[in-house]
Amino acid sequence: MLIGKVVGSVVSTRKCENLTGNKFMIVEVLEHMHSGAKQLIAIDKIGAGIGEYVLVAQGSAARIGSGMPDSPVDAAIVGIIDDGSGLE
Amino acid sequence: MLIGKVVGSVVSTRKCENLTGNKFMIVEVLEHMHSGAKQLIAIDKIGAGIGEYVLVAQGSAARIGSGMPDSPVDAAIVGIIDDGSGLE
Amino acid sequence: MLIGKVVGSVVSTRKCENLTGNKFMIVEVLEHMHSGAKQLIAIDKIGAGIGEYVLVAQGSAARIGSGMPDSPVDAAIVGIIDDGSGLE
Amino acid sequence: MLIGKVVGSVVSTRKCENLTGNKFMIVEVLEHMHSGAKQLIAIDKIGAGIGEYVLVAQGSAARIGSGMPDSPVDAAIVGIIDDGSGLE
Amino acid sequence: MLIGKVVGSVVSTRKCENLTGNKFMIVEVLEHMHSGAKQLIAIDKIGAGIGEYVLVAQGSAARIGSGMPDSPVDAAIVGIIDDGSGLE
Repeated sequence: MLIGKVVGSVVSTRKCENLTGNKFMIVEVLEHMHSGAKQLIAIDKIGAGIGEYVLVAQGSAARIGSGMPDSPVDAAIVGIIDDGSGLE
Repeated sequence: MLIGKVVGSVVSTRKCENLTGNKFMIVEVLEHMHSGAKQLIAIDKIGAGIGEYVLVAQGSAARIGSGMPDSPVDAAIVGIIDDGSGLE
Repeated sequence: MLIGKVVGSVVSTRKCENLTGNKFMIVEVLEHMHSGAKQLIAIDKIGAGIGEYVLVAQGSAARIGSGMPDSPVDAAIVGIIDDGSGLE
Repeated sequence: MLIGKVVGSVVSTRKCENLTGNKFMIVEVLEHMHSGAKQLIAIDKIGAGIGEYVLVAQGSAARIGSGMPDSPVDAAIVGIIDDGSGLE
Repeated sequence: MLIGKVVGSVVSTRKCENLTGNKFMIVEVLEHMHSGAKQLIAIDKIGAGIGEYVLVAQGSAARIGSGMPDSPVDAAIVGIIDDGSGLE
């Protein structure tokens, strides 16, 4: 997993049916946890807010245990870090 | 997921049978969302047009929920961003 | 998926049994579609020749739909691009 | 797999239910084993301590064989290297 | 897949039970086949020796067909290249 900060969200009206109801958050990955891609889009099932530091799972892990086994999702916020400010 | 802009498509006449009928779109990944690979090829099941900003799911997510469980596909356009111009 | 040009092949006599009969092609990935790794090795089920531009699927997609569900394969040529010369 | 050194941990109180009881370790990946992302977060099922060199499995491997098939986990410490100091 | 040269091995006494009996080889990835991570750790089921050039499968492919479906393995040596010296 990696840690990033939620910096915004994007809206997609036309999308796959099985994505309906999901929020697409823009996550800014911590500098020492990305390999060039500074941002990614992750589904949020925890209720993270802008500015919060979150734990992001990628790949098939994003669907497992998130109640979205049939959604085309490859990144999900699976936890909110209690105190992430010292990580940057 | 990542966000990119559809910039073209490619044609493949000789291909795996279970890819028949798919469109192969060239997606230019937003600069801060790629780690070196500026472009990728994604299947389009939404009907995205050239110039539109799209949400791309990679890996097994590209097959799940897209009605293509038996296709050798590792990237799919799963949503069109309502207003992506401000993201670049 | 990504696009690359077939530039050669490698021979492996001692290999996993379930890889027997496969061809291992050296694919040179288009510069704007790789993130540092200029080449990869892909199984060819289409009959691609040296110099042809091909569509490569990676990860579990390489096994799905290629008739190799039990092979330790993570990259496969799944299509030949009709006219790839303009892509470089 | 890759090898890294455990340098700390993070706490996440609000998280996916099926992550409860897991420890989130910060692993500093050996310089010649990362492609830009110097650190990652991995679940620890072995009992690794700060300063130890560990073997990390990523992707679906992180869930398989670790007794966490239903957890949204994409990285796990699966072994502790007996003598990792010479690897750096 | 990618090609690399076996340059050593690591020992892990404390590890996941389902990794028992495996050898962890250090593989130096060919320069034009890695994207920054010069080395990785792969399970060897073929009997590769130090200095040999090997074909490495990553991700779920590393478990499929290697008789290790329940092991937390994300990289495996699946073939030995007959003549790899000319590849560097």
